[in-house]
Amino acid sequence: MSRLHAIIPAGGAGTRLWPLSRAGHPKFLLDLTGTGRSLLQQTSDRLSGLAAGVHVVTGRAHDAAVTEQLPDAEVLAEPSPRDSMPAIGLAAAVIARRDPEAIVGSFAADHVIDDTAGFTAAVREAVEVAETGRVVTIGLTPVSPSTAFGYIDGGARLDGFATARSVRRFVEKPDLETAREYLAAGTYAWNAGMFVVRASVLLDHLARLQPAMHAGLLAIAEVWDTPERETALEEHWPRLTSIAIDHAIAEPVSLDGGVAVVPGSFDWTDLGDFAALADRTSSAEAVWVDAEGFVANTTEQTVSVVGLDDVVVVVTGDAILVTTRAAAQRVKVAPGQWRDRGRVDLL
Amino acid sequence: MSRLHAIIPAGGAGTRLWPLSRAGHPKFLLDLTGTGRSLLQQTSDRLSGLAAGVHVVTGRAHDAAVTEQLPDAEVLAEPSPRDSMPAIGLAAAVIARRDPEAIVGSFAADHVIDDTAGFTAAVREAVEVAETGRVVTIGLTPVSPSTAFGYIDGGARLDGFATARSVRRFVEKPDLETAREYLAAGTYAWNAGMFVVRASVLLDHLARLQPAMHAGLLAIAEVWDTPERETALEEHWPRLTSIAIDHAIAEPVSLDGGVAVVPGSFDWTDLGDFAALADRTSSAEAVWVDAEGFVANTTEQTVSVVGLDDVVVVVTGDAILVTTRAAAQRVKVAPGQWRDRGRVDLL
Repeated sequence: MSRLHAIIPAGGAGTRLWPLSRAGHPKFLLDLTGTGRSLLQQTSDRLSGLAAGVHVVTGRAHDAAVTEQLPDAEVLAEPSPRDSMPAIGLAAAVIARRDPEAIVGSFAADHVIDDTAGFTAAVREAVEVAETGRVVTIGLTPVSPSTAFGYIDGGARLDGFATARSVRRFVEKPDLETAREYLAAGTYAWNAGMFVVRASVLLDHLARLQPAMHAGLLAIAEVWDTPERETALEEHWPRLTSIAIDHAIAEPVSLDGGVAVVPGSFDWTDLGDFAALADRTSSAEAVWVDAEGFVANTTEQTVSVVGLDDVVVVVTGDAILVTTRAAAQRVKVAPGQWRDRGRVDLL
Repeated sequence: MSRLHAIIPAGGAGTRLWPLSRAGHPKFLLDLTGTGRSLLQQTSDRLSGLAAGVHVVTGRAHDAAVTEQLPDAEVLAEPSPRDSMPAIGLAAAVIARRDPEAIVGSFAADHVIDDTAGFTAAVREAVEVAETGRVVTIGLTPVSPSTAFGYIDGGARLDGFATARSVRRFVEKPDLETAREYLAAGTYAWNAGMFVVRASVLLDHLARLQPAMHAGLLAIAEVWDTPERETALEEHWPRLTSIAIDHAIAEPVSLDGGVAVVPGSFDWTDLGDFAALADRTSSAEAVWVDAEGFVANTTEQTVSVVGLDDVVVVVTGDAILVTTRAAAQRVKVAPGQWRDRGRVDLL
């Protein structure tokens, strides 16, 4: 497994988990599951036995915090957010310069996976398939007709591998009816944004599909381990197209038959909102009178709820949020309104 | 009006307004209406032009705070709570020793009355009627079939007074159907616990109806303005029956025709719970996303509500309450549960 390098793009403020998650200490830096390890640390822990190295691409605001949480990881600091393709592409280009035979795997910083054995088996198979020159995605076997994920349309089984299939196409988040059809078909997987591919294959696809980005990333990677790094970043980074790896590589390559999927049946969540968090973790102490719900509390203040069901109360030193599981997806509107009132300190 | 002495029994923790109202700083000491004056101060302000003196009977825990809020009032500190009859009786006995012709009026410490002119007119008439030797209550003209108040059943108009009537009887808080009948009858008034009576008449009724209490109160009053006060309180106060003035005096005397009611049509609330507070005062700043409700906040923390209607959020330094207007009456259960968990500091 020493050929695999794990790339963890760690961006995104997690505004649906505001005010726990903030611009200054976003979701991936938080110990949301009460294990004593942040989501990012848990992601790294899962990968450290599988990979020759862990490379985190994050914003400059989080460079120091990531380094502190993961002293053994390489931290690549982006001058500005450019979505996942430039982030993963930069790490891949830097890794490929050091080891042209490297295989890279990108894994989101904020996923929670309890079944480490299932995850490990899927990654191992994905690496085997990636050796053949394919772009490999690990897709999650759907357990419900979720409309919160994009789907991967799986095709024929690949000879010589335990579970891998070719990918027909990637599809955007469906409506409920379509999601039900996907679930019933049994050949679709949730797109969890996990990609495993030879670094050289990724860069070749990039050279073909996004030649300007490819040139810029190579120019930066060439001087990454030299004093010229900053100058190169200043020159090239602002010109890189802001685009997700799904749109830049996975979707177009899948249409040419170049993508495979390894179905993962391990449990998985991205703790996308307080409903997901409430499902996964225990409520903080509270008094409930004719009431039930979930409390997260980073203060010493007590919380009491009287006469409300399904309520979510989040207490932090400067911001208190009251919502419901049903409204959890709309939480991100609240920090936006505080920003409009000039309270950027709350973001 | 110099004959009237206002007695303000200031007890009760106001647990339905917890955690704003606490044992240590109860409702009557709070500026709940945002006027810069506490409910007690507003009560005193309303009475100071009408009365020769203001006498507050309160627990020893609040002696200093009341004195600070009302430097011109006499504060009578009870060694322990004994309901309203001993409190009002003590003040009446002390006042009667100094001025045997005094008229006393008792007024709750936590009422909010905007119509000072209407209140003043009712008190003036009540004093005139009290001169005749009757126990006079100021009853509020009902504007709804409320089940939250006891009612006063008004009888014949009294000759020579603008609005006063005799009282047939006092009735306990009714069920809704009965409350509707009272409202329709047009002769009932809400019992707001305001009594005006000659001090000597009150003490005579007490001597007849509660002779042991009468003797104890007189023994204390006799030495009130001497160094013997504490000794007398220690000896007599613990033996006084704990009883409300309604049950001790008003109800039995009304059955003998000795009580009159002056109907008051001024607006009035006792701010009994957060629903009443929300109706009377403005919400503190909050972000509302698909939500509406009321926020009270004594901290610098921001409050955001997403996807909840009718919600009440109360934020204090050590306790946060989330409830609804509909559940407002049940709020008092919450501090009880914290007490059961050993958090007496929150009461």
